[in-house]
Formats: sequence, structure tokens, C-alpha cells
Amino acid sequence: MRILGIDPGYAIMGYAVLDYIGNKFIPITYGSITTEAKSLNEERLLKLHEELTEIIITYHPEEASIEELFYNTNASTAMMVGQARGMAILACAQNGVKISEYTPLQIKSALTGYGRADKKQVQTMVKIILGLQETPKPDDTADAIAAAVCHAHHSDGRKRKL
Amino acid sequence: MRILGIDPGYAIMGYAVLDYIGNKFIPITYGSITTEAKSLNEERLLKLHEELTEIIITYHPEEASIEELFYNTNASTAMMVGQARGMAILACAQNGVKISEYTPLQIKSALTGYGRADKKQVQTMVKIILGLQETPKPDDTADAIAAAVCHAHHSDGRKRKL
Repeated sequence: MRILGIDPGYAIMGYAVLDYIGNKFIPITYGSITTEAKSLNEERLLKLHEELTEIIITYHPEEASIEELFYNTNASTAMMVGQARGMAILACAQNGVKISEYTPLQIKSALTGYGRADKKQVQTMVKIILGLQETPKPDDTADAIAAAVCHAHHSDGRKRKL
Repeated sequence: MRILGIDPGYAIMGYAVLDYIGNKFIPITYGSITTEAKSLNEERLLKLHEELTEIIITYHPEEASIEELFYNTNASTAMMVGQARGMAILACAQNGVKISEYTPLQIKSALTGYGRADKKQVQTMVKIILGLQETPKPDDTADAIAAAVCHAHHSDGRKRKL
């Protein structure tokens, strides 16, 4: 299964496309889409939507995984993240990529076995699981990989229940 | 000038297309796009984006007007409104419609001359300005018309300054 993980941000949107085959992960591509603070809101949203759509069209993920809303922030930040998140969800929906949402707790648990793991522990596991020399940067990219890995584990769980 | 006014909501998105010619408003179309709570998030966002895009392609507004972020709410609501708002801004940007944003205070002032006017006063002015028998329903539609009228007045202001 080819999975697109997304860490939906307004200034930086992390993405990762992973193949999950026989319990192993093969990284296909990962990185981040960035928008500049000096650009207009509509230009930033357009860029996020266009570049994520390009990634979907290029790599054809079958399913997508996105971190659930993070409520512990102020309304102004939440509104901007919501706009960016909308771009990611729309790009998937327009291209028939099914989206699953996971809480930060679910993602941390899937990666480290511990829902209260810190950022560094999650990043270390991302590096180990993908067999990388370095932790992918920025953090948003590592978070997108973590979201994809979490989805793979949950899909396994669903299959086992069948 | 043909103006698209938008009241960006997640369950109900109000819209209005008005022609503003020689200080007068001619309503071209107005109404609301609704999404059902039982639908998936991606289906709701897709519907908002598709239907607003259809309105833009059909009526060719030259400029758009949208109410600015309303911060006085909780982060969870702000996130959902942000997602919906992103759909409206993207639909405009993808079709070359320039977007202006106005605060609730600016919109109320433009309609009634008073920034603290209540909803009913704004709705009454919407009815009078467009020469309608009834106030357009739901409130989201009236708010979209108000946003469009506000933009027309501000554009006039800009022209006078030239």
C-alpha cells in the first residue's frame, strides 16, 4: 500500500509518500511545502493546494493520513491551520485519495508504543523505521512520515480484525 | 463592477453576486451552499469548493469580498471555519478573482454607518439597498450581500483617493 502522510501547516506543510509492503516501509519521497509570510493569503493557499496536488498526481498514493485537529491553540492560529488543512484534504478528495485522521496520541503510540513520547523519540523512531542516516528535516517532514507509519499500523489492525 | 460576497461557513456558506453600477446595486444571484453534518469532512469541503467554483464560472465576478477571521470563538470552531474559508479563497484564487477582506466592524459601518449595528439593522439595510420585499434567508446569505456592498463602498473610496 502506498501512503501519503501529511503534517498540515500554513507556513510549512510536511509530506511523505511511503510504500508499506510486508511490514516494511520504503520511502518514495518526503519533504515540505513552504509558503512565505510576505505573500498574500490566497497565494499561500494556492501554492499549498497546487504543490500537494502535484505530489499526489506524481506518486499516486492510495490512502492518506493526516494529524487530527490540534485544539490546544488560540483561535487565530487554528483558523490559519484550518485553511491549510483544508487545502490538503481537498487535494486528496479531488484525486480520490481516502483520508484517515489520527490524534497526536495515536501517532506517538504507533511510533514509540507510548502516547506521551516527546518529539525527539518520535523522530528517532522515524529514522530507524525508514533506515535513514539522519532525521528528516524540518520537523514537519518527520511528522508527516510518522502520520503515514501510524496509518499503516492501523490498516494492519483493521485487516487482522477481518 | 461585478462583486462576489462570501460569508464563509462550514455548514452554511452564504454567497451573493451583485453588479455595482453608478452607485446602484443590481442583484445577479444570491443564496447559500449547505453541507450536511453526517457527511465526511472531505465531502463537505469538496462540495463547498465545487459549488462556489461553479458560481464563479457561471457569473464571472471581477472581485470578491469576504468577512475577516472572527477570532472570538474556540479553536475547534475556528479550525472548521478556517477549512471552509480556505475553500472560498482557493476557488477565487484559482479563477483570478481578487479577494478583499473586511472586519465585521467595517461591514456593519458600510451598511448602517454604525460599527456596532445589530444583525437586524444590517439585514434591513441589505433589503433596502437591493430593493427587495423580504430579507434574504438564511442570515448567511444576507451577510454575503453585506460583504459585497461593503467592498463596493471601499472600492469607491479607493477611486476617490486617486
